[in-house]
Amino acid sequence: MLRLDDLQMNGLKLYQDSDYFCFGTDAVLLANFARVKRDGLVCDLGSGNGIIPLIMSQRTKASKIYGIEIQKEQAELFSKSVMLNSLSDRIFPVLGDMRQVDKLFDRASFDCVVSNPPYKEVGGGIKNLSGSMTISRHEIHCGIEDVFRAADYLLKPAGNFYMIHRPERLCDIMMFARQFKIEPKRIRLVLPKSESRPSMVLFEGKKGANPKLIMEKPLVLLNKDGSETDELKAIYGRN
Amino acid sequence: MLRLDDLQMNGLKLYQDSDYFCFGTDAVLLANFARVKRDGLVCDLGSGNGIIPLIMSQRTKASKIYGIEIQKEQAELFSKSVMLNSLSDRIFPVLGDMRQVDKLFDRASFDCVVSNPPYKEVGGGIKNLSGSMTISRHEIHCGIEDVFRAADYLLKPAGNFYMIHRPERLCDIMMFARQFKIEPKRIRLVLPKSESRPSMVLFEGKKGANPKLIMEKPLVLLNKDGSETDELKAIYGRN
Repeated sequence: MLRLDDLQMNGLKLYQDSDYFCFGTDAVLLANFARVKRDGLVCDLGSGNGIIPLIMSQRTKASKIYGIEIQKEQAELFSKSVMLNSLSDRIFPVLGDMRQVDKLFDRASFDCVVSNPPYKEVGGGIKNLSGSMTISRHEIHCGIEDVFRAADYLLKPAGNFYMIHRPERLCDIMMFARQFKIEPKRIRLVLPKSESRPSMVLFEGKKGANPKLIMEKPLVLLNKDGSETDELKAIYGRN
Repeated sequence: MLRLDDLQMNGLKLYQDSDYFCFGTDAVLLANFARVKRDGLVCDLGSGNGIIPLIMSQRTKASKIYGIEIQKEQAELFSKSVMLNSLSDRIFPVLGDMRQVDKLFDRASFDCVVSNPPYKEVGGGIKNLSGSMTISRHEIHCGIEDVFRAADYLLKPAGNFYMIHRPERLCDIMMFARQFKIEPKRIRLVLPKSESRPSMVLFEGKKGANPKLIMEKPLVLLNKDGSETDELKAIYGRN
C-alpha cells in the first residue's frame, strides 16, 4: 500500500509502498556515516525507494547523487519522491542492474559510492525467489562481491566506498575489499544498547589506498531505559 | 632487574625482568578469552615470561601447555616460574623460533594455539633492532603471517586459534586467517571505557571451519569513574 512519510528532516517526504521493503535505521545510519567532498559525485547501489540519496542530499554538499535500483516499482516511487521534494537537479534515479553498471556509467566517474545491500545470503529457507520483499532482503540480484565489483568500477582513485552490513559478514567484506583494492579505512560497530552484541557494521573503504584502518568507538542506539541516545537523535536530526 | 610478582590467582607467582617486556592486560585478556577442551593440548606462540601458559593452567582443563619463546633469557625466567609454581607436569617452556615450528612439533598435534604477538610493525621509527624490549614489541621475529603459518601447522582439524592484536590490524588478521584456512569465528573488541575507541581486538579462529563469524559485545575495561568493570575484575579473579 502506497504511503507518503514525512522524514522530519528539512521537510523531506518519501513515498513508500508497504508491499515492498520500507527503509530502516540502517539506511539512515549509512547516509550519515558517508562522507562526500563538496561538489562530489555520489552513486547509491540498490536505492530502493531512494531513502539514502534523499538524506545525503540534505546532509552532504554532494553536487549530484545517482541511485541505481533494479525493481521498477521501487525506482518509480524513488522518482516520485525526488520530484515531490524538488530535488530533480541533484538526485537521479536510474532503473538498472548494478551488475551491469558499465552499461550505465563511465569507469572511475564517482567520488563516493554507497550501498545498503540485502543482508541475507541465498540459502535454504527461501521459498519464493521472485517476491519484491525477498529481492530487497536477500542477495539475489546482488551479493557483497557484486557491490564491491560495481564500486571498484565506479570509483575514481582515492574515492570512498560506504556500506552497512551484518557483523557476521565482516570477514567477507574485508576479503572483497582487498580483492577489489578498496582498502578498509574506517569501521564502526552499531550496538542496539551498550551491553549488546553489535547488530550492524558500518564500513568505509578507499579506492587504491594504503592499509590504515581505524576502528571507531561503537555507535550505541538506545540507552538502558530504551530511549534514543543523543547520538542517534542527532543522526535523525531530532535534537 | 629481576622481580617475583604474585599474580593473585591461586597463589601463582611469576618471575619478570624489568629490562625485558613485562606482561600486560592483553595477555590476561587473551588467556581468559581462549577456550580449551578438557585434556586439550595447547601451544602458546611467543610466550615471553610465560604469563599466558601460567594463567591458562589455572583457568582451563588443558592437559599440557607448551610455550615457545625465542629469547633465551625470557625462556629461562619462564622455566623458573613453572618450577616455582610446581607446574612442570603441565607447562613446558620451549626455547625456539615459531617460524621453524616444524622442527619442534609434529603437524596437527594441538587442539588450541594462542598468541599475543608483538604489535608494532617494523617501520621507520625503530633505532635498535636487537634490544630485547624491541623484539617483544615489534614484528621482528614474528609478524601476523608467521603466527598464522605456525598455527596452521600446529592445529588439528577444527582446532582453535586465539590471538589478541591492535584493531587497526583486523583486516590483515582476516586476510591471513582465510589464507591459512583458520576461519574467523568469534571477535571481541576491547574498549578502555564504554565511550572509547577499541584499543585491542580478541580473535578466535577454527581450523578448516565454515564461515560463521560472531561479533561479541565489546569488553569494557573501566567504568566512567576509572574503576575496573565487574567483567575485568572477574577476569583478574578479583571478585
